[in-house]
Amino acid sequence: MEAFKMTDNVIGFRFGNPVETGVIQGEKTQVEVNLPIELREEGGRISFTLKLTENDRVYGLGPNLGGINKRGRIYESYCTDDPLHHEDKTTLYGAHNFFVLEDDDVATGFFIDFPGRVKYDVGFTTLEELQVEIHGQDFDIYLLEGASIKEIVASFHKLAGKPYMPPKWGLGYFQSRWGYQTEEDVKKVYETFKEEEIPLDGIYLDLDYMEDFKDFTLSEERFPNFKDMALKMKEEGVRLIPIIDAGVKIEEGYPVYEEGIKGDHFVKDKDGKPYVAAVWPGKVHFPDFLKEETQRWFGDQYKILTDAGIEGVWNDMNEPAIFYDETSLQEGVEAAILAQGGNLNVNAFFSLRDKFMNIGNKLEYYRRFFHEIGDRRLTNEEVHNLYGYMMTKSASLGLKKHLGKRHVLISRASSIGMHRYGGLWTGDNSSWWSHLSLNLRMLPSLNMSGFYYVGADTGGFGGHVSGELLTRWLQLSVFTPLLRNHSAIGTRVQEPYAFGDVLTRANKKHIERRYMLIPYLYSEMLKTYETGGMMFTPLAFEFFGEEAQQAEDQMLLGEELMLAPVVSQNAKGRYVYLPEDMVLVDFKKYDSSLTLLKDGVHYVSYSLEDLKFFLRRNRLMPYTMPSQTVKDQDLSILKVLGYVDTEAVYVLYDDDGESFGYEQGKIYKTTLYARKLETGGMKVEAKSNHPDLQTVNFTLMDGTGEIWNEEVKVQRG
Amino acid sequence: MEAFKMTDNVIGFRFGNPVETGVIQGEKTQVEVNLPIELREEGGRISFTLKLTENDRVYGLGPNLGGINKRGRIYESYCTDDPLHHEDKTTLYGAHNFFVLEDDDVATGFFIDFPGRVKYDVGFTTLEELQVEIHGQDFDIYLLEGASIKEIVASFHKLAGKPYMPPKWGLGYFQSRWGYQTEEDVKKVYETFKEEEIPLDGIYLDLDYMEDFKDFTLSEERFPNFKDMALKMKEEGVRLIPIIDAGVKIEEGYPVYEEGIKGDHFVKDKDGKPYVAAVWPGKVHFPDFLKEETQRWFGDQYKILTDAGIEGVWNDMNEPAIFYDETSLQEGVEAAILAQGGNLNVNAFFSLRDKFMNIGNKLEYYRRFFHEIGDRRLTNEEVHNLYGYMMTKSASLGLKKHLGKRHVLISRASSIGMHRYGGLWTGDNSSWWSHLSLNLRMLPSLNMSGFYYVGADTGGFGGHVSGELLTRWLQLSVFTPLLRNHSAIGTRVQEPYAFGDVLTRANKKHIERRYMLIPYLYSEMLKTYETGGMMFTPLAFEFFGEEAQQAEDQMLLGEELMLAPVVSQNAKGRYVYLPEDMVLVDFKKYDSSLTLLKDGVHYVSYSLEDLKFFLRRNRLMPYTMPSQTVKDQDLSILKVLGYVDTEAVYVLYDDDGESFGYEQGKIYKTTLYARKLETGGMKVEAKSNHPDLQTVNFTLMDGTGEIWNEEVKVQRG
Repeated sequence: MEAFKMTDNVIGFRFGNPVETGVIQGEKTQVEVNLPIELREEGGRISFTLKLTENDRVYGLGPNLGGINKRGRIYESYCTDDPLHHEDKTTLYGAHNFFVLEDDDVATGFFIDFPGRVKYDVGFTTLEELQVEIHGQDFDIYLLEGASIKEIVASFHKLAGKPYMPPKWGLGYFQSRWGYQTEEDVKKVYETFKEEEIPLDGIYLDLDYMEDFKDFTLSEERFPNFKDMALKMKEEGVRLIPIIDAGVKIEEGYPVYEEGIKGDHFVKDKDGKPYVAAVWPGKVHFPDFLKEETQRWFGDQYKILTDAGIEGVWNDMNEPAIFYDETSLQEGVEAAILAQGGNLNVNAFFSLRDKFMNIGNKLEYYRRFFHEIGDRRLTNEEVHNLYGYMMTKSASLGLKKHLGKRHVLISRASSIGMHRYGGLWTGDNSSWWSHLSLNLRMLPSLNMSGFYYVGADTGGFGGHVSGELLTRWLQLSVFTPLLRNHSAIGTRVQEPYAFGDVLTRANKKHIERRYMLIPYLYSEMLKTYETGGMMFTPLAFEFFGEEAQQAEDQMLLGEELMLAPVVSQNAKGRYVYLPEDMVLVDFKKYDSSLTLLKDGVHYVSYSLEDLKFFLRRNRLMPYTMPSQTVKDQDLSILKVLGYVDTEAVYVLYDDDGESFGYEQGKIYKTTLYARKLETGGMKVEAKSNHPDLQTVNFTLMDGTGEIWNEEVKVQRG
Repeated sequence: MEAFKMTDNVIGFRFGNPVETGVIQGEKTQVEVNLPIELREEGGRISFTLKLTENDRVYGLGPNLGGINKRGRIYESYCTDDPLHHEDKTTLYGAHNFFVLEDDDVATGFFIDFPGRVKYDVGFTTLEELQVEIHGQDFDIYLLEGASIKEIVASFHKLAGKPYMPPKWGLGYFQSRWGYQTEEDVKKVYETFKEEEIPLDGIYLDLDYMEDFKDFTLSEERFPNFKDMALKMKEEGVRLIPIIDAGVKIEEGYPVYEEGIKGDHFVKDKDGKPYVAAVWPGKVHFPDFLKEETQRWFGDQYKILTDAGIEGVWNDMNEPAIFYDETSLQEGVEAAILAQGGNLNVNAFFSLRDKFMNIGNKLEYYRRFFHEIGDRRLTNEEVHNLYGYMMTKSASLGLKKHLGKRHVLISRASSIGMHRYGGLWTGDNSSWWSHLSLNLRMLPSLNMSGFYYVGADTGGFGGHVSGELLTRWLQLSVFTPLLRNHSAIGTRVQEPYAFGDVLTRANKKHIERRYMLIPYLYSEMLKTYETGGMMFTPLAFEFFGEEAQQAEDQMLLGEELMLAPVVSQNAKGRYVYLPEDMVLVDFKKYDSSLTLLKDGVHYVSYSLEDLKFFLRRNRLMPYTMPSQTVKDQDLSILKVLGYVDTEAVYVLYDDDGESFGYEQGKIYKTTLYARKLETGGMKVEAKSNHPDLQTVNFTLMDGTGEIWNEEVKVQRG
């Protein structure tokens, strides 16, 4: 063991000879300290136990099931393609090893820098114990201290590096479906959004656009004018965002396959031959994204897309997902042959059935292929959680190089470190009410891991959505930086206009309201780039008491808002807990209504047409008028809603929306200010270096519930 | 079509030539009325559409997923063995075709008397439409009118007949697990309950006790002294309750099989040979429970169990569940052989995998065997939902005949009509928090269908339970007439003492409190026998307004209580909506505390050790002191909690607990009475014909929050 100090509040402890994951950045100063936790070794695995008092809470672990407070369940960090996210599951697509243990007095952060499997038993087996099991002996543990969870998170972000920042158009609304099978299908969607005047910034393309599921190909038959279409739509501000899968089809004459073989870019089996697995294209090889040459080579392939006008990509199946490999398929076949005509007993039958039922993503597949790292040859299992991360790094390098400006990039598999290269969507969820509330609960733990450009498949990917669920989901998703409605082939169509006139109208309003919120959301994104920390914060991080601690269906957004979406079927409202006085906003294009509510619990009516949220005391929230695309936003007039008891200030960040200038601080800042005067009046000011901004309209509620409408010209500076 | 009047508020409409299901009893008077609903025919199916206004609510449909209000989902009445009850599922084990459509002004009941599949699209596809599709053309529809849902339910119960009534010991606590593999395992459980002094009235035996999964056999090897054990434990008040499956193992020399063949008791395939399917024992035949001779024959088999001291049975796998049949297995085998060595494309692979993955309970199996009904030969699909019902009727006939007193009988598959012969458990649920709340939501729709002896597998059957979840579940289940903790082999052990000292203590308290509540619960059961109607009533049935209508996690019990269990992980309390002033009871063996709460929403702390509920205004709830078994209950002293603002009365029903005397009204009645005097005092009385009852202790809260402790001697009469 060696220990090293990273900052005053962070010490790292190294055990064995860990694989370099590239997550933690910054200088390490060797120190003489012992890890204040007892480690146990058994069968090559290291575990430790943290005591939990009755009131301790555990937060973090990224995109996972369970509550905001992770107590009471088992979690495993092991990127897995499993589309049925019910309560028995212990892992989803991401593997995020950062968590904070908090009681009322003290909080401690833990980051386990290890690319293999880690298991967390958070008071499940034993109510009073958090048991961590690391499937290996080579890893770093970082302990982070701080006065609050938010402070710990911010120091973690300093070590883990600045997050990926999408272009501003990435905050638009995106329509997606596995099943837009032809150019005509895509155009139809595009045209319908135009006809219905529903804002839209892009359409995601699933596997349908490829030739035989081959990465970096465009189907001649179904998408003969891909580039023309992409460019023409982009002129109107609507981008196409194609999918890229991890596996490369084995096919003579297919350039990516042939180059990959020639350049030795694929992972190997035990005999040193490229490992063969089956995914969508049939048999494939997997690029060894852990090698820098391969990252560069694969990254360069994205040029085929950028040349066709593409500025955004989603990386999929990069856990990597495996449908089967030949060995396991052969085992199934042999078991089936033996079963022929026989009177199977029940165990023999289940064993046969399970050979096929459980043939996907078997643990043994990940033991059958290897990565070479320095002079070590490691199974994929040992470094599994780096795969999606490194694929995304590869894509990021390629897209940056070939575009010369910012791009949209999201990935299904993820681990911490990847946040510097891309965002993520929370994977193949379902059209379930429980996944709507899960979406909300995941947001803060994703922020804790450094991911801000995040969102769930709005409406749910698998299963059939009801119109009500889609609309309720939009009422949440309009607040998430990534807003994408995506669904699977064979499920009910899920576009916002697919559920009858009443809901089309409601959905259109919600998407317009999203565009109204973009200045604020984009500002908050730019701020997290500057300072780290949380964009979505649980009430428990800011307020004391049982009610705040167990508010699992409410969320703070920035320093300004509290969200309390309806997440139950057939509800026309809900109970909302206010930890302090707040102003309820019924948000509308014109004439939003404001209502002052005292702290405590309230029943709030919330119809399908409403978009409601709460403004915190002495806070301002800027917004603008809706537009059909992000590029059409008019920022000459800004509007502001506020709850101003004494005085309030908000600094709005903006930039050109596409260059990397923000990395050097090229930010437009607009300072919005309001003060309730002793004399009874309301004083407002706006100062800005934003080139477009001219006027600001304030609508403010004061502590007595009185409304003040004030307009000011912007002062330069 | 012919129409017939059943009562002033109920008219039946007959279409075609329906199979006699035996559900509706009573005289039919032919009338000249048209069904006020337009029917459509397509492909041999009849459908109709009911308009839903925005505020309409739909209740009923028995043991189903979704809310108390069924809007927004699709349901299918088609008994199915599917243990993964996630939100995509449309049917579970029961098929209950009674529902009520309600808006604020008027309620209408519908009962579709049809034994095949019925599909309900309750505002899912179209927000404003309830679409019903009957998979056939021969059925009765009953329309029920009434001033309230409760009135409609009560008239339905009059037509559908009196419910099954368990013996009083059936209200005790039951421990169960698939995996008590030997006599020693069972004794160990029994002994541990004794040691820990946790009340217990019986242990359920799953398949483990049988010889090779053969019905009506006892394993010589694992249960060599079955009868001795059963009798000895029964003397102590602890009964064994073995499982019986629907399928009869095909095995020469096995008497049930041989008699079944000889007596022509098995369902036939298209060639008239007994149909072969595979379930737990391997290949089986299914008794044709739709034939009365077979009902009698199979019913008589239960004598083997009653002779061994058994007084309760659970009927399982009676949808009937089918693991596979030879035709489908062979198809899988052939597909596997074709796949050998080939480079499968993705569709061919999924097709092969699905042949095994979806091999269970295929629809085509139910088209491959037949029932002879009169001169008709119908596929099982056409009369599918009668199977579990008729198996339970068969068991009921046999148990009645061979015991001569009441028995416990529950079934997994169910349809309306079966409520006269047995209770049900809600099937193979999971250790999920969402299934705890589902348990609560199912209770009223089961009551609407006439089922009162109901409960879920407490703690969850599949998956691993956390100690917290089991305890939270007990806090609900102590109120359900059937209280059984049951879990699957391979899952975490789930006895109430398996989660450490703190939770053992809490669980023990909850089970003791259950025994304290038995006089009240049993009284409510006897009353439903007398009057029909609801035991568990949604707030929406009694109170107006949005908050009552969407209170999906609260429930009225009888006329006296409101339940509001904690159904969220890591919660230390919850919000409770009080539609009117109520008294919060923190229920304890000694010194329960009472708190008067005003109407509206309240945050109520609710720890794992607590058992809390609410007393309605001017209501009394009797209880007694805990005992180790029901037979040991001391009813000489009764205790009463009450909230008496002006005056309150409760009539406690009791009987000998085991005879059929209650059918002739042989009931002990105790009238408990309290009145707040104008002069400020509290007057209490108790009058009874109960042979044991001597004294009643009242603890009453009045409208000012003052507590009155009063003891009275019971007046005879």
